[in-house]
This record gives sequence, C-alpha cells and structure tokens, in this order.
Amino acid sequence: MTNQRKPRGPYRKSAERREQILQAAYEAIDEYGERASLQDIADRVGVTQPALTYYFPTRDDLLLAVLERRDVLGRELAGGARRDRTMIDSMVAGTRHTTGHPGLTKLCVTLSAAATDPQSPAHGYFNERYRRLTAEVARDLEERQRTGELRADEPADHLARVLLAVLDGLQIQWMHDSTVDMAAIVETFARILAPLAGAGNAEEPAG
Amino acid sequence: MTNQRKPRGPYRKSAERREQILQAAYEAIDEYGERASLQDIADRVGVTQPALTYYFPTRDDLLLAVLERRDVLGRELAGGARRDRTMIDSMVAGTRHTTGHPGLTKLCVTLSAAATDPQSPAHGYFNERYRRLTAEVARDLEERQRTGELRADEPADHLARVLLAVLDGLQIQWMHDSTVDMAAIVETFARILAPLAGAGNAEEPAG
Repeated sequence: MTNQRKPRGPYRKSAERREQILQAAYEAIDEYGERASLQDIADRVGVTQPALTYYFPTRDDLLLAVLERRDVLGRELAGGARRDRTMIDSMVAGTRHTTGHPGLTKLCVTLSAAATDPQSPAHGYFNERYRRLTAEVARDLEERQRTGELRADEPADHLARVLLAVLDGLQIQWMHDSTVDMAAIVETFARILAPLAGAGNAEEPAG
Repeated sequence: MTNQRKPRGPYRKSAERREQILQAAYEAIDEYGERASLQDIADRVGVTQPALTYYFPTRDDLLLAVLERRDVLGRELAGGARRDRTMIDSMVAGTRHTTGHPGLTKLCVTLSAAATDPQSPAHGYFNERYRRLTAEVARDLEERQRTGELRADEPADHLARVLLAVLDGLQIQWMHDSTVDMAAIVETFARILAPLAGAGNAEEPAG
C-alpha cells in the first residue's frame, strides 16, 4: 500500500480496527486452530464481542477473512519463489508453510470440505479460490513452456491441477498423521516430474 | 461368505437387520448426500428410529459404517483392476466411482476433514484408513518394482502417497467445480509418470 491517498479520520480508524481484529483472529487460529474463541480474539484487541460483530457479522465471515489472508500470504510466498526459484521449490516452501501453521491448515481443510455444500456461506469463495489458483499456476507453467523450461506437449491446466492436488492431498494425509514428511514426498514428486523439463534438460538445474 | 457355519436364529436375524439398515443408509446417502435423514433411512427398512439406534447408537456410527462400505467396494474395484489393468487404469476407475457417487464422495471429504480433529469420533478411523491405503498401494508398487514394471529408484511409499494425494486433491477440486474432468487429468498424470515405467523406457534412469 502506498502512502498517497491514505484514508483519514473515522474511516481510517475503522479500517485499522478491522485490520487489528483480523490480525488477532489470524494469530489466535494459528495458535489454537478453529477452537480459538471469539472472546479470545476480542480480548487480544481489547474490544467487546459485539464490537467484533460490527466488523465481522458472523463467525464464518471472520474465518473466511482469515483464510483469505492465509491465501494472500501463500501467494506472496509462491510469487516471491516464482521469480528466483523453481516451481518445485515453491511447492516445498508451501509444504513448510502448511506444517508450520497447523491451525491455519486445519481451518482451510475444514472450510473447504464444508464449502462443497452449495448452501455453505463459503461455497462461492472456494469455487473462486480454486479457479484463481489453477489459473495462476497454469499461467506460470505456460510461461515456462514458452521459454522451453518445460515440455509443451501436456496441457498446462492439467499440470496445474495435478500440482494443486498433490499439495492438498498430502496436506490431508499429514493432518491425519503428522509423521508424513510432505517436503520429502514433494521432492520425490519433483524427480518424477524431471523428464517434463525442457528437452535434454531433465538432469540439469532448471532455469 | 461361505454357507458353512452361517449364523442361525436370532443372531442371524439381527445381523441381517443391521445389514439392511447399512444398505439403506448407503443408498440414501448415495442419493441425497449427508442430508439424508435417519427417518428416511429407517423408513426404507421399515423400522422405527429407535430400532435403528439399537444397531447404530449415533449418526456418526452409521456414517462411518457407510464410509467403511464405500472403502471396501473401492478396494474391490481397485483389487479387480490390479490383476488385469495398470495402476493408472485403477486410478481412472476410482475417479469414475467418485463422480458417479457424489453423495458418498462428499461424505468422505467432510468426515475426513472433521476427523483431523483428534477429538472427532472418526479420528482413529481415518488415521488407520490412510495408513492401510498407503501400505496397500505401496505393496502393489513394490511388486511392480520387483518385476521391473516400474523403476525401483524411487521409494514406493512416497509414490503411493503421491497417487493417493492426486486422487484426494482432484476429488476436492471436482467437488468445488463439477466441470473439472478428473479422468482426463489422471490420464495426463499417467503420461507424466510414463518414464517411471521399467528401465529402458525412461529417458535415462536417474542415479
């Protein structure tokens, strides 16, 4: 955010309060998972529960905002990685974020499952989330196909969906058994994918 | 089940009634998903709700039994496939079972997410489910590595976890967007895996 045209006065104060609540909720869920209580979150900011409800009318509204923040941070992580690391390094970074923040991971898995119900308040969010994630990863893969870093004979859209599926699926296995070594399995997966790297580059370090 | 030592009298009657209820629950959930009511299930068998509770004390007990039946049928499908088809054909058959039975798929996704909570009644079931599924698929892959059908330089356990993750992850994407063509994506995935097939078919066996 730039410093120009920063909102002033009551509006800015309201935006700051909303941000404080969101940050407190993010930290409480990171620490205690979905069991984090609204009272605990309100206490962290020093507001009452009704005040909290003014900014986030329902618990679901707050949980979705936390998930959105996790997604934004995740994208920044992947985006930063994209410029100077390989796709697989981004995936490994993703698994480290998952295992380092079990409360947020569990929130994502639970909301996602509930959101498969078209009547869930999160249904639209997850539909859009997967559409956007797939499109972003596919665009990145297409770019790598154009530069010859990746073989161009497989649909980037399918590859993107496989990559996201591996991350989601391993995340579930890890949540059921914390001894599952997601990073090591992603590295095995990377070796399986190596022949996809541009003709002849298979064993060479990618771009 | 053989005909020898078939239980008789009241015990057999009780086992038959339990089986009728389970089959009715399976069909109701296949049709209506988790929204299927206990009353509807009881009506299908012609028993009262309290009678149903005698066989399955809680709704969770009944849902887990339905999931167990789905898993057994899934294993029979995969097992039948294993003998005369490739691993990937089994995966494609799995995706067709998923898309053909959305109610049962949703039950599995929702219970799995809830079961990541150690206090969930389904926690132990899912922990054991993934342990067993991984072991079964890994055993199958090891056998293929022994016969030279698969390259032996990647840990079968990691490969098994990747295969299961792809299926689980695509299942989630499909539940959020029914236009996702799971079978076609699994076929793309199969082509990516092709270099893993027996020595000589790979570009160059990795060290």
